[in-house]
Amino acid sequence: MSDTLLELFEVITSRRSADPKHSYVASLHQAGLDKILEKVGEESLELILAAKNQVPDATTERLVSEMADLWFHTLVLLAHNDLTPEAVLTELKRREGTSGIEEKNSRPLTSAE
Amino acid sequence: MSDTLLELFEVITSRRSADPKHSYVASLHQAGLDKILEKVGEESLELILAAKNQVPDATTERLVSEMADLWFHTLVLLAHNDLTPEAVLTELKRREGTSGIEEKNSRPLTSAE
Amino acid sequence: MSDTLLELFEVITSRRSADPKHSYVASLHQAGLDKILEKVGEESLELILAAKNQVPDATTERLVSEMADLWFHTLVLLAHNDLTPEAVLTELKRREGTSGIEEKNSRPLTSAE
Amino acid sequence: MSDTLLELFEVITSRRSADPKHSYVASLHQAGLDKILEKVGEESLELILAAKNQVPDATTERLVSEMADLWFHTLVLLAHNDLTPEAVLTELKRREGTSGIEEKNSRPLTSAE
Repeated sequence: MSDTLLELFEVITSRRSADPKHSYVASLHQAGLDKILEKVGEESLELILAAKNQVPDATTERLVSEMADLWFHTLVLLAHNDLTPEAVLTELKRREGTSGIEEKNSRPLTSAE
Repeated sequence: MSDTLLELFEVITSRRSADPKHSYVASLHQAGLDKILEKVGEESLELILAAKNQVPDATTERLVSEMADLWFHTLVLLAHNDLTPEAVLTELKRREGTSGIEEKNSRPLTSAE
Repeated sequence: MSDTLLELFEVITSRRSADPKHSYVASLHQAGLDKILEKVGEESLELILAAKNQVPDATTERLVSEMADLWFHTLVLLAHNDLTPEAVLTELKRREGTSGIEEKNSRPLTSAE
Repeated sequence: MSDTLLELFEVITSRRSADPKHSYVASLHQAGLDKILEKVGEESLELILAAKNQVPDATTERLVSEMADLWFHTLVLLAHNDLTPEAVLTELKRREGTSGIEEKNSRPLTSAE
């Protein structure tokens, strides 16, 4: 199951040089970094709005769908920068490994943050 | 490797009821949905700025670090809504499985988008 | 010159009940709050990207254009909530009047912010 | 009343070279473009969350306050780029003057947008 991200990333990578007319991924790469970043920002915003729309059931479905959109476009961003999801997962594992997930604790959450 | 997300999510879930003074995750849950959404939005923005700062090497490192931050906070958002990353991965797999990753193609990327 | 905002707001208000097929403002109102908020978020993001694209001359023009877009959509948001720009201007004047624009100083800008 | 924006901008401009320890505006300029853009993005997000929190009375007050924050930081962004609010107001007036506020109509709002 959890290999889904890596499989998806392989598909995204393979589509990079496809015909932009037939591939959404290829069209994003062709449009360039700013377009990809706009999509990341938009999907992030749609995720936030989905989370705020407290309609039972519908909220869950839309929140999951918007998060899938967001993760998908972050993978496209990685590919566009010749990076891999493994790099991000390694960074997450490193944080967990050293001082644990609580590394951020040194930066306490205050009302000012 | 790719189990990292699921392992991380388990850690996040287990910290939910920890002391907010000692756990960043617990402090986020206590602060509530709006604070978590603000963090998702902020990390998304920092990711975008990192991608725009075209400093060789430094850009790669910061981009990976900001994406780790973003993924981390989306996992916290899932936990806060009693959802799991499996739900998102299933949705991503479903899209890939049916009409493929190109499902979005029906919504072509135009200059108006 | 600075009455432009208020004149623009009057135009926006008058278009609220126009035919959505012929009026962008009416179509935004009809689409509802989430669509208006998405536009505010998108224009904000495009402003940020414009500011990061350090192309001389072109940057200035695009930055001004994107900020016009952002201000325009915040005025639509005000109208949609039956609020007025005067309320925002009054709030800005109040801050300037009391402890001055530096009111925010009580919340010093730290690296953690 | 409507001169408030221009007066505020003059104050912002005059504070640019103040001591960052005592002036929020000066501290923003010193922190640089990315910090200013982060604030624009954060205030935009807080405005969106405020608009979604449908608490009568409180919503109105917080929405106005967050919009004041957003407008304030866009003025700082203008100053940081040696631009003026007049440039933005002129652009808004130009749109209104030519094809009217409906210039955007050529780009109809569709469900895909």
